[in-house]
Amino acid sequence: MTKTTPGNFFEDFRLGQKIAHATPRTVTAGDVALYNALFGSRFAVQSSEAFAQKIGYPRSPVDDLLVFHIVFGKTVPDISLNAVANLGYADCRFLSTVYPGDTLTATSQVSGLKENSNRKTGIVYLRSIGFNQDGDKVLEYVRWVMVRKRDESAAAPPEHVPTLPAAVGADTLGGACPTISGRHYDNVLAGSPHRWSDYAVGEQIDHMDGMTVEEAEHQMATRLYQNTARVHFNLFAQSKDRFGRRLIYGGHVISLARALSFNGLANAFHIAAINGGRHVAPLFAGCTVFAWSQVLAKAETPARPDVGALRLRTVATKDKPCADFPLKDGEPDDPAVILDLDYWVLMPR
Amino acid sequence: MTKTTPGNFFEDFRLGQKIAHATPRTVTAGDVALYNALFGSRFAVQSSEAFAQKIGYPRSPVDDLLVFHIVFGKTVPDISLNAVANLGYADCRFLSTVYPGDTLTATSQVSGLKENSNRKTGIVYLRSIGFNQDGDKVLEYVRWVMVRKRDESAAAPPEHVPTLPAAVGADTLGGACPTISGRHYDNVLAGSPHRWSDYAVGEQIDHMDGMTVEEAEHQMATRLYQNTARVHFNLFAQSKDRFGRRLIYGGHVISLARALSFNGLANAFHIAAINGGRHVAPLFAGCTVFAWSQVLAKAETPARPDVGALRLRTVATKDKPCADFPLKDGEPDDPAVILDLDYWVLMPR
Amino acid sequence: MTKTTPGNFFEDFRLGQKIAHATPRTVTAGDVALYNALFGSRFAVQSSEAFAQKIGYPRSPVDDLLVFHIVFGKTVPDISLNAVANLGYADCRFLSTVYPGDTLTATSQVSGLKENSNRKTGIVYLRSIGFNQDGDKVLEYVRWVMVRKRDESAAAPPEHVPTLPAAVGADTLGGACPTISGRHYDNVLAGSPHRWSDYAVGEQIDHMDGMTVEEAEHQMATRLYQNTARVHFNLFAQSKDRFGRRLIYGGHVISLARALSFNGLANAFHIAAINGGRHVAPLFAGCTVFAWSQVLAKAETPARPDVGALRLRTVATKDKPCADFPLKDGEPDDPAVILDLDYWVLMPR
Repeated sequence: MTKTTPGNFFEDFRLGQKIAHATPRTVTAGDVALYNALFGSRFAVQSSEAFAQKIGYPRSPVDDLLVFHIVFGKTVPDISLNAVANLGYADCRFLSTVYPGDTLTATSQVSGLKENSNRKTGIVYLRSIGFNQDGDKVLEYVRWVMVRKRDESAAAPPEHVPTLPAAVGADTLGGACPTISGRHYDNVLAGSPHRWSDYAVGEQIDHMDGMTVEEAEHQMATRLYQNTARVHFNLFAQSKDRFGRRLIYGGHVISLARALSFNGLANAFHIAAINGGRHVAPLFAGCTVFAWSQVLAKAETPARPDVGALRLRTVATKDKPCADFPLKDGEPDDPAVILDLDYWVLMPR
Repeated sequence: MTKTTPGNFFEDFRLGQKIAHATPRTVTAGDVALYNALFGSRFAVQSSEAFAQKIGYPRSPVDDLLVFHIVFGKTVPDISLNAVANLGYADCRFLSTVYPGDTLTATSQVSGLKENSNRKTGIVYLRSIGFNQDGDKVLEYVRWVMVRKRDESAAAPPEHVPTLPAAVGADTLGGACPTISGRHYDNVLAGSPHRWSDYAVGEQIDHMDGMTVEEAEHQMATRLYQNTARVHFNLFAQSKDRFGRRLIYGGHVISLARALSFNGLANAFHIAAINGGRHVAPLFAGCTVFAWSQVLAKAETPARPDVGALRLRTVATKDKPCADFPLKDGEPDDPAVILDLDYWVLMPR
Repeated sequence: MTKTTPGNFFEDFRLGQKIAHATPRTVTAGDVALYNALFGSRFAVQSSEAFAQKIGYPRSPVDDLLVFHIVFGKTVPDISLNAVANLGYADCRFLSTVYPGDTLTATSQVSGLKENSNRKTGIVYLRSIGFNQDGDKVLEYVRWVMVRKRDESAAAPPEHVPTLPAAVGADTLGGACPTISGRHYDNVLAGSPHRWSDYAVGEQIDHMDGMTVEEAEHQMATRLYQNTARVHFNLFAQSKDRFGRRLIYGGHVISLARALSFNGLANAFHIAAINGGRHVAPLFAGCTVFAWSQVLAKAETPARPDVGALRLRTVATKDKPCADFPLKDGEPDDPAVILDLDYWVLMPR
């Protein structure tokens, strides 16, 4: 019996199938330092034990996106080793705070299957859940991904496309954020005087700064998450592919955009949910990433007078500053756009 | 009201102005590991808990330059986002030992202002102080930096250039170094038999080794310090600039020179003060850094029979070994020189 | 007296000479995170505190190869600064588990000397031992290395070539592995259903995946180990050398091959010994590393009913997938081979 896993193909998935993913992972202060070195994040709650404790955290939490990437990474060997493209995310909710020392595991369940008309590929929908060592859910999300078939003539499973919410309900946000003391939240140390009430729906923010990505950086990031997708690491194989080079993990762009968004959203200390996201175009090493955001909605969370929620759309581009707020499906349509992300953040009131 | 900070321009500074900088930062063992991976530092006190404890430290301290870079990094968003050049340092003193787990914050006060005759830029002098979570000063230094004006026609502030000491007084050194036991300091483990008394004023030391710098390395280092200066990260913008590429943070050169100086100065375990420093020329990725040092002075610190101080001049070059001890303003003048640093180190007696 | 160390040359070594190496090194969670980011290791015992504790470790141990590289690194300034080539390893045994927080030191003894016929170089055989802060041996190995002579006319020492075992005896394995509970070892979390009894002598496994190496990555790795060999870091000097570029530390290839071997050997959670290894050809940045393994032998360790040993031959290549199991001294001889490693791993029974 062969010992090597080639990964699953489209015809290997069954509707309702449950998958327990391998490689439990203890998150440490070392992982946090690497994440900081790779993205230059500056949100005070994640940067400072003293700041976090002053507002009510027992200690500094792990960055939400680092948690996301680690849980996502676990699913790759079972789900997307033979993926053509990661198509989208939905209904992503952060449910418990993760601290250094916590050990993360992940499971997924197949919630939809749809063969493509070319019969070479199909779309797999999965609901994935990340757990900590106590069995608490820390993260839950749906993603759909286009996966190659092993055998084009293999029979297609019954088609089922799940119904997904357009956005996470604001009333469900905040499970991964303890009650904080806005009075002890120091705007000066946090880097901005602008709290939740200062933002208006429709407001657009150019995050101004740009960050160039190197091959060593995205490879180190993606390996840190134990994400094994071949397209990110194997120049030998990729040089024969249509792009001729390594593709950067889409999550790398999300983390860069989040770090850049500090300039304008410094008090958006917690990502509470991701409503949806599209990797509109691939990113390659040597390109410089820029970003801008728009406030899509504001919500008071009734049970939480300490924080307010902002629904944001953050758009990232490559090799193009965002002073004119470019969009992919806008007028005009801008080919520099690489990411279009819709998510909820929490801010102190 | 715009939420994005474009950074301060020359006309925004006022003499005596106090600035509390954002983003408190807890230093961890993860940061220390990254610093080691980036520079290959080998000083035994910072490398080994067991060695540090044996000579009298409660545990291994954080490298002095990592402390400097983190404090410096905090000042960048307020001070030097619109800087043309970092011109110099003076009166830099390390005042308390920093250990992993400590949280650093920083403040600055404007101590001098001088508009340049072209009216496009001006020089800002600042005294910056780093604090730990208990409010102890860990570091204090003056730097001056050339900052662009937003508006050339803006009125110049009254000119004031502060008086700065040529060197930190040897009698004030040692605040960040506990009393050590020279008897328990193991020369073999430390890597050199040469202690303070073995060095002579005027002695020149070629550190021999060279270290090539990659873009990913200096970007990761500089982000680790949360230093946001655009010239280090944004190839898109820099490619339109006079150099056509990213500039490496000057502090990266200081850390490389310090790591290289181990070969010849292995027992110089603590930088107690920086008297002055000039970044004589820029460094770019792909270049190889070399360094040499000269002993400028020796001092016994009366209250400290455990250690002696050496005043060193360390010169770094790019793409040129230092066997002939090159200088920038020497005879001949050497264009390979990139750094000229004057500082005090402590060595066991 | 010169303070700089140029390193030892062949004529500086004496048979039986004992060398205590400098720079004790405390291994931290930060080092572990960097190692993970550089190699993407996925073995569950090293990745998860919870997994390690469940099977009987007090906590997650440090990766065996990270221990090897750190001990090896300490020997470089005394042994191989003037080396032409690292020729081989033998009799390498992992003797005690290393945990984050442990401090490693190293000593070596010269066990053989043989001048080459060209009189320009000679081969030095050394037995090196790594210790923890309690004085326990954590690692012991022999390596032989070709070292330049300072002076070709220097007298050659008496020739002595030590007798080395072809392989470490299986009955001596396991000192660095506590008794584990196979019943609590979760195959699903570990990533493979295949335990010791499922492997057959002669079985060949293509590890399939490839990993491209960047200059920044191997430099960071090698500095993390405080390995100062000049060929890895100094492009200025190397550009004048026969290869024209930096050579990647051979140990980097071993770690890449080990990480790739997870796909097929996921339950080989501990390297217990290295019988021998040859760096058949150099690796340069930009190349993609692949690997395959063959089971050379199986051994039950009588005193250890919890684990079984597999003797593996792992071969790594550059820019060539290993589906046809290439060998250097095979038929045909494959120039893509860069590493041929013979070692013992432990697996749960």
